[in-house]
Amino acid sequence: MADTQPTLRLTLDGAQKLLAAAKDKAQSMGVPQCIAIVDAAGHLLAFARMDGAKYISRGSAERKAVTAAATAQPTGGVQPPEAAVQLAFATDGRRINLPGGLPIIIEGQVVGGIGIGSGKGEEDLEVAKAALAALPGAKRF
Amino acid sequence: MADTQPTLRLTLDGAQKLLAAAKDKAQSMGVPQCIAIVDAAGHLLAFARMDGAKYISRGSAERKAVTAAATAQPTGGVQPPEAAVQLAFATDGRRINLPGGLPIIIEGQVVGGIGIGSGKGEEDLEVAKAALAALPGAKRF
Amino acid sequence: MADTQPTLRLTLDGAQKLLAAAKDKAQSMGVPQCIAIVDAAGHLLAFARMDGAKYISRGSAERKAVTAAATAQPTGGVQPPEAAVQLAFATDGRRINLPGGLPIIIEGQVVGGIGIGSGKGEEDLEVAKAALAALPGAKRF
Amino acid sequence: MADTQPTLRLTLDGAQKLLAAAKDKAQSMGVPQCIAIVDAAGHLLAFARMDGAKYISRGSAERKAVTAAATAQPTGGVQPPEAAVQLAFATDGRRINLPGGLPIIIEGQVVGGIGIGSGKGEEDLEVAKAALAALPGAKRF
Repeated sequence: MADTQPTLRLTLDGAQKLLAAAKDKAQSMGVPQCIAIVDAAGHLLAFARMDGAKYISRGSAERKAVTAAATAQPTGGVQPPEAAVQLAFATDGRRINLPGGLPIIIEGQVVGGIGIGSGKGEEDLEVAKAALAALPGAKRF
Repeated sequence: MADTQPTLRLTLDGAQKLLAAAKDKAQSMGVPQCIAIVDAAGHLLAFARMDGAKYISRGSAERKAVTAAATAQPTGGVQPPEAAVQLAFATDGRRINLPGGLPIIIEGQVVGGIGIGSGKGEEDLEVAKAALAALPGAKRF
Repeated sequence: MADTQPTLRLTLDGAQKLLAAAKDKAQSMGVPQCIAIVDAAGHLLAFARMDGAKYISRGSAERKAVTAAATAQPTGGVQPPEAAVQLAFATDGRRINLPGGLPIIIEGQVVGGIGIGSGKGEEDLEVAKAALAALPGAKRF
Repeated sequence: MADTQPTLRLTLDGAQKLLAAAKDKAQSMGVPQCIAIVDAAGHLLAFARMDGAKYISRGSAERKAVTAAATAQPTGGVQPPEAAVQLAFATDGRRINLPGGLPIIIEGQVVGGIGIGSGKGEEDLEVAKAALAALPGAKRF
């Protein structure tokens, strides 16, 4: 194999497109949210806390995004619950098992993750789905 | 929307009124307590550890106050238990699911939170309720 | 004194206005930046990492914003250097003494802070200044 | 030597007396402060953040109190500066070398510490001194 491989990288423009779509969806649902978009490495690219969203949900929004990017899967499905706790300990709390995080996958490559937090789990997930639907070529959930 | 919005801020006088009422109630119950009052953003405004209260309950008292202020709800009601653990991880332990924390709500605005810790959960909650009842205009629980 | 006092709160719209202006300025300078805007309490409202900005500067951008909001002053002026180190320890590293953070002051009230990080100190500060100049009524530096 | 020894313990009443005197002094100086009183073990007994004091100074106020109680000396005198940094590292940042912390010494015993933070170092120290002067029998500085 070659020493290096070409990969795709999510730009700030892409991240802000996701963020704007998430904000629109949350507004239409009447549920203010914290919205976090990270790159494939889990580093924060874009964030917004909508007026009325819980500031304490900033951590959960970002960690959902990190977890989804790092595992290439939606967050919240770890079984049994004890395993989720062990995984949280093993990652200093970064791998979180709450719904509302989705990987951003383009051309089969994980380019990042989006995490939504402040509403109920199913509301958070709905917003994340709507955001991905607004990014051309992104895998839908 | 405008760049800024008017809001209410809890003063130290208001916080000390809550603290004094909580202390009186705890004394009358014969259960010494740690009493923490935070502002809307979760920053500590006033604290007292009564003689005989557990010093290790300082953290739980403060985190109950922070959680209640940040969620605009009484603490302790998260279901299922696994979700409470995940929320604690997501917030580096700041979001706590023990009874005894209540939001301070005036004119419909969350201006802070009060957290009581060192007794049994129901005792802690009773003290928090008594404190809020002593602050004119505060929502009662 | 009354139990509560009226204050101003920075909205997400206001924060995103600052962020957009900071991004434009950084682009025109050819220096990609991490841009963080926090509310008066130091909680993150909006964040963007421009393409090419260092991901490790996310923390410095946010802490500059937090420090400026919490101290109502530009960051970077603590003397002597030893005091700056002690203040960082006293705040678990949140109070940072690097240039590039400015308080957001409207009608004489601190409503938040902006922090820029990834360039040289003077470049960071220049971007923060340009952002504040784009927010109607904000104190300029 | 006997297996146990009688010691003095600072009560909440004593701590609140110190806190009230500190608040009065700070008010008369026109410099709002964070005021922290800890027991001999360094555990928080009483705390108040005055209106207008920096919330980010809560940590420095408390750590000054802890450091003074733990070392039985006023804070801020460690030399050379490098030693202060090493002591901070060695204590996870709890031993802090900023002026404004004084030990509470009664009948030759350290019963606690008081720490003041939000003003300039010399202002903080002045408030701490005034508080101790208001506690009968406490060693003055």
